[in-house]
Amino acid sequence: MGNPRSQKGSSRERELVDMFWGAGFGVVRAPASGSATDRALPDLVAGNDERYVAVEAKASASDTVYVDGDEVSQLIEFADRFGARARIGVRFDREDWRFFHPGDLHVTDGGNYRVKKETALRDGEDFEEVVGGTKQVRLDGVGDDA
Amino acid sequence: MGNPRSQKGSSRERELVDMFWGAGFGVVRAPASGSATDRALPDLVAGNDERYVAVEAKASASDTVYVDGDEVSQLIEFADRFGARARIGVRFDREDWRFFHPGDLHVTDGGNYRVKKETALRDGEDFEEVVGGTKQVRLDGVGDDA
Repeated sequence: MGNPRSQKGSSRERELVDMFWGAGFGVVRAPASGSATDRALPDLVAGNDERYVAVEAKASASDTVYVDGDEVSQLIEFADRFGARARIGVRFDREDWRFFHPGDLHVTDGGNYRVKKETALRDGEDFEEVVGGTKQVRLDGVGDDA
Repeated sequence: MGNPRSQKGSSRERELVDMFWGAGFGVVRAPASGSATDRALPDLVAGNDERYVAVEAKASASDTVYVDGDEVSQLIEFADRFGARARIGVRFDREDWRFFHPGDLHVTDGGNYRVKKETALRDGEDFEEVVGGTKQVRLDGVGDDA
């Protein structure tokens, strides 16, 4: 509240940059999409000499996040070229960041990607998994048992 | 000519981004230094799944380029964290880009890095070397024999 949506998104993105930095990674936040380039770009790229991660980051005050299909295509193309893991990071209010490989997300009829809060909290990777630390204990495969 | 210095530097930087992209790399241009962060940042980061390069880029219309010591420290710290080769890229008017590892450059009494055009053309790596293509034929070691 009080912050326009874009400012909030931007401040959440900085939070994620700080987390990667705190975990010992080098991090670059890419210029805002659409800024004088048609080259594929994620929101940020982080690396620690062992693991490289490209992230498209979305924060939401509601219970569902939609990610534009074109942004996801750009993320995948960039990650493929660069040599990085492609991750969509979602951050719901009062929750921790959760991460998904784009291929694990629901695609709407319109070609966009949808993440529900409940799915994110149940199936998403947490930050420690993304940076290569401890893994969550997970039921294998399906993930619909919970 | 006609362009303010910063615009020219910026356009040269875009040129370098295009070159990496054309060589099959994913490239991110970092936001301008000093923009709301004290985290170490290079001008750009490029990767192709085998090789990761962080570049501080400088263009000059004169015969000598000076690179701020703090910018070089940031480049080195970033490259070390991220897992990338640190390179200072210099571009003199009407010449191709040349690249140096910071450790191979002359440091002035004031702690800044200096590259003379003549040294750059003689001893610098060319773009193909930086992206891992064909290597220049070079006399080994010293490099003062030419």
